[in-house]
Amino acid sequence: MPPPAALSASSSFTLLSPPPSPKPKLPPFSPRKHSLAINPRRHSLHSAPSSAVRCAVIEKETPEANRPDTFLRENSSSSSVRGRFEKMIRDAQDTVCAAIEAADGGATFKEDVWSRPGGGGGISRVLQDGAVWEKAGVNVSVVYGVMPPEAYRAAKGAAAADHKPGPVPFFAAGVSSVLHPKNPFAPTLHFNYRYFETDAPQDAPGAPRQWWFGGGTDLTPAYIFEEDVKHFHSVQKSACDKFDPAFYPRFKKWCDDYFYIKHRDERRGLGGIFFDDLNDYDQEMLLSFATECANSVVPAYLPIIEKRKDLPFTDEQKAWQQLRRGRYVEFNLVYDRGTTFGLKTGGRIESILVSLPLTSRWEYDHKPEEGSEEWKLLDACINPREWV
Amino acid sequence: MPPPAALSASSSFTLLSPPPSPKPKLPPFSPRKHSLAINPRRHSLHSAPSSAVRCAVIEKETPEANRPDTFLRENSSSSSVRGRFEKMIRDAQDTVCAAIEAADGGATFKEDVWSRPGGGGGISRVLQDGAVWEKAGVNVSVVYGVMPPEAYRAAKGAAAADHKPGPVPFFAAGVSSVLHPKNPFAPTLHFNYRYFETDAPQDAPGAPRQWWFGGGTDLTPAYIFEEDVKHFHSVQKSACDKFDPAFYPRFKKWCDDYFYIKHRDERRGLGGIFFDDLNDYDQEMLLSFATECANSVVPAYLPIIEKRKDLPFTDEQKAWQQLRRGRYVEFNLVYDRGTTFGLKTGGRIESILVSLPLTSRWEYDHKPEEGSEEWKLLDACINPREWV
Repeated sequence: MPPPAALSASSSFTLLSPPPSPKPKLPPFSPRKHSLAINPRRHSLHSAPSSAVRCAVIEKETPEANRPDTFLRENSSSSSVRGRFEKMIRDAQDTVCAAIEAADGGATFKEDVWSRPGGGGGISRVLQDGAVWEKAGVNVSVVYGVMPPEAYRAAKGAAAADHKPGPVPFFAAGVSSVLHPKNPFAPTLHFNYRYFETDAPQDAPGAPRQWWFGGGTDLTPAYIFEEDVKHFHSVQKSACDKFDPAFYPRFKKWCDDYFYIKHRDERRGLGGIFFDDLNDYDQEMLLSFATECANSVVPAYLPIIEKRKDLPFTDEQKAWQQLRRGRYVEFNLVYDRGTTFGLKTGGRIESILVSLPLTSRWEYDHKPEEGSEEWKLLDACINPREWV
Repeated sequence: MPPPAALSASSSFTLLSPPPSPKPKLPPFSPRKHSLAINPRRHSLHSAPSSAVRCAVIEKETPEANRPDTFLRENSSSSSVRGRFEKMIRDAQDTVCAAIEAADGGATFKEDVWSRPGGGGGISRVLQDGAVWEKAGVNVSVVYGVMPPEAYRAAKGAAAADHKPGPVPFFAAGVSSVLHPKNPFAPTLHFNYRYFETDAPQDAPGAPRQWWFGGGTDLTPAYIFEEDVKHFHSVQKSACDKFDPAFYPRFKKWCDDYFYIKHRDERRGLGGIFFDDLNDYDQEMLLSFATECANSVVPAYLPIIEKRKDLPFTDEQKAWQQLRRGRYVEFNLVYDRGTTFGLKTGGRIESILVSLPLTSRWEYDHKPEEGSEEWKLLDACINPREWV
């Protein structure tokens, strides 16, 4: 019983990390010498979202000066799954940002806090043009609203088809991050952990509540250092194995399948773990599992960065990294569920596209020489390997 | 009565400039030390096209050593609209490529010729890393095939809904080009002119034939030189005015509307002309009009390049050009009909994405200073102006 696609999990910043500030506008119009045809549709060209779900999701956000202790409603319990999930993702944001700043050695994250009139809010943090990372974003969001009964029925399947409930309150929270280093031997990391819950429909208080977990952590290098990739996957496997020996093989394959650039017949990178719409395990167990995964980000990634961030490289190696960054752009703009949903529904574009690299490259008909290090990376993106 | 979307006009290379060579594969597999999980789906993950239209369009292409005098069938007349349109687009390709090579002063186009077993073929030319242009592609294609009756009925509307014709032969030809210069003061140019025709359904020889023209030429600078933009639009207007005074205003607005990056609420560039599915004028007149437009590419664009290609620029100005190139990528990957259709249906990716710039850039929350040259460009992309 997956949630409706529009509200479902995604790998990007969109749904669970909405806008830290209102849609940017150009500064006030200045007088000019030329007669201008001011477009009267300038701020009305975004067609209305096609359903109440989208309206709920893209409700306007308000910048806030201060970070609240919690985005939950006043009557929410901090010991609820919602409360503990929020604490987990905010701790993860703090921990990862602190580790990134320490490793970067100078640059700091810029923070934007926002809230939504209907409830909830988020904290976006972006570090740009550091010594080690060219762009690093780590966002959390905690949002709630109301989804239309059609979406709830679609999520619940045939069992709910025989009655017509009213609007269904939902809750969604997540942490989401993309970290793009400068050195071509230092890999890009992406992670995202999220939790989604519906209440019973407002006019059917006895109906079942629904909940789902989603998330994953994946690595996108431009060059393969076997020991790095093995280390990364080992940490993912260890986190999985603490809960279920079936998790790592299942979520490793899910990751390879999700980050698939169909038009290239290759993956974005070398994978990791990915899961979505997960509710067929004990809820407490999945909360612990998501927590373990989020806690594994720093030990999985930072040791690799420390080893690779200062390696010397050539212009050709930088250009190859840039070509792989182009693939990252292609995946995110064409396939990523969160990005494409966010672009269609009018989310704050800077939050959605902070996942894109600072720079990228497309060469016509580039083919790495057989047996070269670039060829090996591409081969591993086409034929996913078992690393542990 | 527009043609079905899948076969309709587009602004990119996809439909009308299919693959010059087969889908690239990695070189033969080399022995390695590691055990590998070879993906058995490696060459079968492209899901089958969902309709016979797509099958026809993406029919496999064969590389050819030589350029034929014509891609038309042997029994076709060179004086037919098809024959004259093919001659026009091939002349346009030769003329534009010669002008680009002369202005670049050293770099030359690499040519790929391809044919399709079912009929037709194309010529792709790409110049990369020249002195003036970082990437320039000029492609022609002339393809024919058979579209399913459903698509024909959809194109013809209700008038055809009461009978069930068999498969409908179609013909599509076009020239398509994107030219990305290096200097941030030298603008990117895109143009594409195309012609589409159906025969009567095979089992209904008396049914009406259909035909449409489409195309356009548009300019995407990173900085506004008023005289350049006015010159460019003046040439477009002059070409239009030779045929109908209503053309330029109509096609100028159509261009502003088409190259719209909805999620940014801004246009990709400063427009030009664009038209699609055009069949409500005399066919001979539209053939002459498309020819006039194609002939206007060099006089509209090259004088601008000559004035701007050697201007000195700063790193900041180059970075702004790169940000605007990022917008070009966003438009082409997210909105362009030809590109998105090509990516979904398994066209040769290098042909489709040759329209992307060599390099591009995304900065978080970049806002040009009010009144700056960058701000003026952005303002003109948000509020399309009348240039002539």
